[in-house]
Amino acid sequence: MINYQSVLQDTYQKICSEENTGEVASYIPELAKINPDQFGVCVKTVGGEEYGVGDWKAKFSIQSISKVLALSLTYNLLGDKIWDRVGVEPSGNAFNSLTQLETDNGIPRNPLINAGAMVICDMLISHTDDAKKELLEFINQICPDSKIEYSEKIAQSEKSVGYRNIALCNFIKSFGNIENDPQLVLDFYFHMCSLEMTCQELSNTFMFLVDDNFRSTKGEKVLDMQKAMRLNAIMQTCGFYDESGEFSFRVGLPGKSGVGGGILALHPDKYCVAAWSPKLNAKGNSSRGMKFLELFTSKTKSAIF
Amino acid sequence: MINYQSVLQDTYQKICSEENTGEVASYIPELAKINPDQFGVCVKTVGGEEYGVGDWKAKFSIQSISKVLALSLTYNLLGDKIWDRVGVEPSGNAFNSLTQLETDNGIPRNPLINAGAMVICDMLISHTDDAKKELLEFINQICPDSKIEYSEKIAQSEKSVGYRNIALCNFIKSFGNIENDPQLVLDFYFHMCSLEMTCQELSNTFMFLVDDNFRSTKGEKVLDMQKAMRLNAIMQTCGFYDESGEFSFRVGLPGKSGVGGGILALHPDKYCVAAWSPKLNAKGNSSRGMKFLELFTSKTKSAIF
Amino acid sequence: MINYQSVLQDTYQKICSEENTGEVASYIPELAKINPDQFGVCVKTVGGEEYGVGDWKAKFSIQSISKVLALSLTYNLLGDKIWDRVGVEPSGNAFNSLTQLETDNGIPRNPLINAGAMVICDMLISHTDDAKKELLEFINQICPDSKIEYSEKIAQSEKSVGYRNIALCNFIKSFGNIENDPQLVLDFYFHMCSLEMTCQELSNTFMFLVDDNFRSTKGEKVLDMQKAMRLNAIMQTCGFYDESGEFSFRVGLPGKSGVGGGILALHPDKYCVAAWSPKLNAKGNSSRGMKFLELFTSKTKSAIF
Amino acid sequence: MINYQSVLQDTYQKICSEENTGEVASYIPELAKINPDQFGVCVKTVGGEEYGVGDWKAKFSIQSISKVLALSLTYNLLGDKIWDRVGVEPSGNAFNSLTQLETDNGIPRNPLINAGAMVICDMLISHTDDAKKELLEFINQICPDSKIEYSEKIAQSEKSVGYRNIALCNFIKSFGNIENDPQLVLDFYFHMCSLEMTCQELSNTFMFLVDDNFRSTKGEKVLDMQKAMRLNAIMQTCGFYDESGEFSFRVGLPGKSGVGGGILALHPDKYCVAAWSPKLNAKGNSSRGMKFLELFTSKTKSAIF
Repeated sequence: MINYQSVLQDTYQKICSEENTGEVASYIPELAKINPDQFGVCVKTVGGEEYGVGDWKAKFSIQSISKVLALSLTYNLLGDKIWDRVGVEPSGNAFNSLTQLETDNGIPRNPLINAGAMVICDMLISHTDDAKKELLEFINQICPDSKIEYSEKIAQSEKSVGYRNIALCNFIKSFGNIENDPQLVLDFYFHMCSLEMTCQELSNTFMFLVDDNFRSTKGEKVLDMQKAMRLNAIMQTCGFYDESGEFSFRVGLPGKSGVGGGILALHPDKYCVAAWSPKLNAKGNSSRGMKFLELFTSKTKSAIF
Repeated sequence: MINYQSVLQDTYQKICSEENTGEVASYIPELAKINPDQFGVCVKTVGGEEYGVGDWKAKFSIQSISKVLALSLTYNLLGDKIWDRVGVEPSGNAFNSLTQLETDNGIPRNPLINAGAMVICDMLISHTDDAKKELLEFINQICPDSKIEYSEKIAQSEKSVGYRNIALCNFIKSFGNIENDPQLVLDFYFHMCSLEMTCQELSNTFMFLVDDNFRSTKGEKVLDMQKAMRLNAIMQTCGFYDESGEFSFRVGLPGKSGVGGGILALHPDKYCVAAWSPKLNAKGNSSRGMKFLELFTSKTKSAIF
Repeated sequence: MINYQSVLQDTYQKICSEENTGEVASYIPELAKINPDQFGVCVKTVGGEEYGVGDWKAKFSIQSISKVLALSLTYNLLGDKIWDRVGVEPSGNAFNSLTQLETDNGIPRNPLINAGAMVICDMLISHTDDAKKELLEFINQICPDSKIEYSEKIAQSEKSVGYRNIALCNFIKSFGNIENDPQLVLDFYFHMCSLEMTCQELSNTFMFLVDDNFRSTKGEKVLDMQKAMRLNAIMQTCGFYDESGEFSFRVGLPGKSGVGGGILALHPDKYCVAAWSPKLNAKGNSSRGMKFLELFTSKTKSAIF
Repeated sequence: MINYQSVLQDTYQKICSEENTGEVASYIPELAKINPDQFGVCVKTVGGEEYGVGDWKAKFSIQSISKVLALSLTYNLLGDKIWDRVGVEPSGNAFNSLTQLETDNGIPRNPLINAGAMVICDMLISHTDDAKKELLEFINQICPDSKIEYSEKIAQSEKSVGYRNIALCNFIKSFGNIENDPQLVLDFYFHMCSLEMTCQELSNTFMFLVDDNFRSTKGEKVLDMQKAMRLNAIMQTCGFYDESGEFSFRVGLPGKSGVGGGILALHPDKYCVAAWSPKLNAKGNSSRGMKFLELFTSKTKSAIF
């Protein structure tokens, strides 16, 4: 029987004893202001236990981790027809590359790179009355005891410098794979990325991809089992941009990272784990988060492979 | 408790009742001659049971599935330093693309695309006395009751038309990432791809990636647990060329395909499954094999996600 | 001694007797409304003669031909330091490709593709009080007896569907190679492309690249001889997108095309020729214009090679 | 009236007084042995005068300049059908890039990059009894008082390290755009590149692209006027790899460079000029050669633009 709390603490201390390498994401002014030494982890098990260490109850900008939540809501609403407009293949390129779109006629490789997430945002705008509001409700229904909000400050900060994302969205629009006004899509996209959560909230929220008995506050399953399995598969192959293979190789779990320094990973039968530390490695993933999770699955022998 | 034999038979019959779509690989003259309606599957469980259906005892050309075997031998010999010369990221490109090599200075994205497998072949040539012989011994030691051989006829047939592979190998050599004479490397590579096995032999051979207690005829572990887990992770993200994401998404198992129509897949705790049917889909993977495995993991609820 | 008027008429009649193939540019709604059978040509010689045929006095949207005019004004203002921010190499890609920018860190290959022209527009905005007004003044000073204007209707029509150009401009901005607000740059760019001129006006305007004695209405040389020669060299290698080589090969003159169906070409010692016919070939250049110019330089033996 | 000899000497002395920058091509062992300070220039005029300076009578490896000679022979033999298998567009890439071939299905962009020259070599092999012999005869017939030969030593040296070229040729073969055995094509290609000539011989040889009255020793025109004009156009846009635009921009003449440090350029009505100095700039073109020609056309006001 694994003593998660003790593994958590031992690993946390080991990582803290090493140099805190990497760089805080600097291209979004508001994100650059963060204290780079914050570090927290939370594990939630399928049995209902919860273990935390460090800054696991501090809010941070979950950034691209939110893409999985928007995708879950959209997948549930629209089913497998979403795959007509976005693929499920790893991209082999950086998170904000435009090159592949040119080859692929505006069909993003997968829904977890920026281009793909924008297409998902576009679908949500077309199929809801108020996409921003409904995404927030969806999250609060699967993470009930919390109050998850967008950070207007972060959203505006990203918008003010988001030239690459503006380029991406207009580029996809030029291929006809965005239905709505790019400005509307980008506004939703930047808000989605600005969501703030704690490690505790993140690991609780994503239990719907682990626990087949999970129900939202409305008493409903969030995704049926096949859809949940497919989301996990996409996170496994595409969750870490052009470091997805490396993460699979070292950590061996499906997961998703964000440039705010958060990483969410999960064992499909056992637990969710959320780690957060703002300094990023060269590929844009949390340095300490990656190291923590590699040690964690190694010690708990819980890689899925 | 799953009744594998009955799942195997039901699924097999269902697939056989549908049209046999796709095309036999035609670029290798010898492969093009095959009877396209052959179809077999074998499952070997961690408990030692073996189930088969159709042409599961017929030899076929395993082609790229052999890349995992050469990689296993090399990984065991040289350890993690092999990753200095080949990556672990999905390529996002077709199996024989040269484009990415130009961007990446001759470092192939992963060891399961042609370019990466050639670098592995080059390492084996440098670190063994007779690479062809030692690879064969390695395989026969982990699949003891059989006699696995190269097909000289297939190897020569591939060599006679293998311009793309000759280009790939010389291209990598031009970046300095091949140590030996390209002709030597290609000769070994074409022989490796010409290996002939049955579904039964394949599923038995790959048990070393499933069963931690597996021992070769020499009484040794083939790979330690971490290395085995990492090989599985690479198969998960890179085993099906630019359909790797799709395979993960639909089937949910680590695996590897070959243009001979074989697919090897495995559940890291439960079983190996080998399917073979020569007609390939547009991405170069066995059409019936893909369909079979999707139904199989769905019915047995044994995707790893 | 060449009888230009007779060559003009013979060639015009020959072309008119053949089918008018190709397609009018349809992506800009206002351009798509044009009568596709209009066709005019004007030749202006260094000796001052002027010859015209067909619709040579009808205004049309000169589109990308305007890039050479903005470039001339900027080159005159800023000199060779403009080449720090834009190259002089043919791109080998379509006119609105984003791929190469990613490889080249936001430095467009040359000033005659959309990306490069936007960087030139950005320079003009930074170095003039009112770029739109000054460009117009510049053109009217070198084409004195006319009234050249922007078409507000065309500019707005392009803006309404210009997603690819919005993407391009924001993409370059993300690399730091646009100084001003992308919306400002795009507004100027779309106006520049909306300029309307006749074949007569075009061939008169570009005489500053032919006749070393040419003076604007202010009594000044427009470009010194070396700069004029270099502009001609850039038109030769880059003036027709990925058909630049073909134009050089068939016509043998420096020139520039626009999606409005106009082509301006010139012999650096002899004449300017402007041809206009709205139907475009697959590469986006006027079909009849290309054919006319090939016959014209062949009959007059006036290719520069 | 231009005093070519005095321009030649003044420019030569000016260049010699500056540092001899760049690097000798080192990837071909035999080329790397050359004395890097050799420097010669020869001008041959349409009036029959000949002017030389420095090492203008020393033999050197003309390398890729030979591509224009093989192209001329092939163009004369086969006419415009050669353009079915090779384009006339600048490539926008380095001389030995494979990337574009993958996009373009094995059709090289133009006949002056390595890929295109190999396709031309393949055509010559198919349409002559002995391509090596006939190319040599062709050259000796247009440069009568000399004895032009292949350098067996250089050819073998290139073959021993020509992995990139072997890759290129096999890659094109894999698309079906090489008819003969790649080894045969490469043998001819390496011999062609090994041709040794002096500046004097080069400028005499290429007079057939300048002087419409030029006749070979067989009393024949080498190319009709239109074909000669088209060859010049291709040299203008494609003769200097990804520095073709720069050469056009600075020098303003059609030309072709070789990694042996030679540059051949010509004014289609006036003269041929051959310059040679082994040190190459970053794009693989002779540093001193480029500088010399820029000054030369500037002083003689003989750019074609």
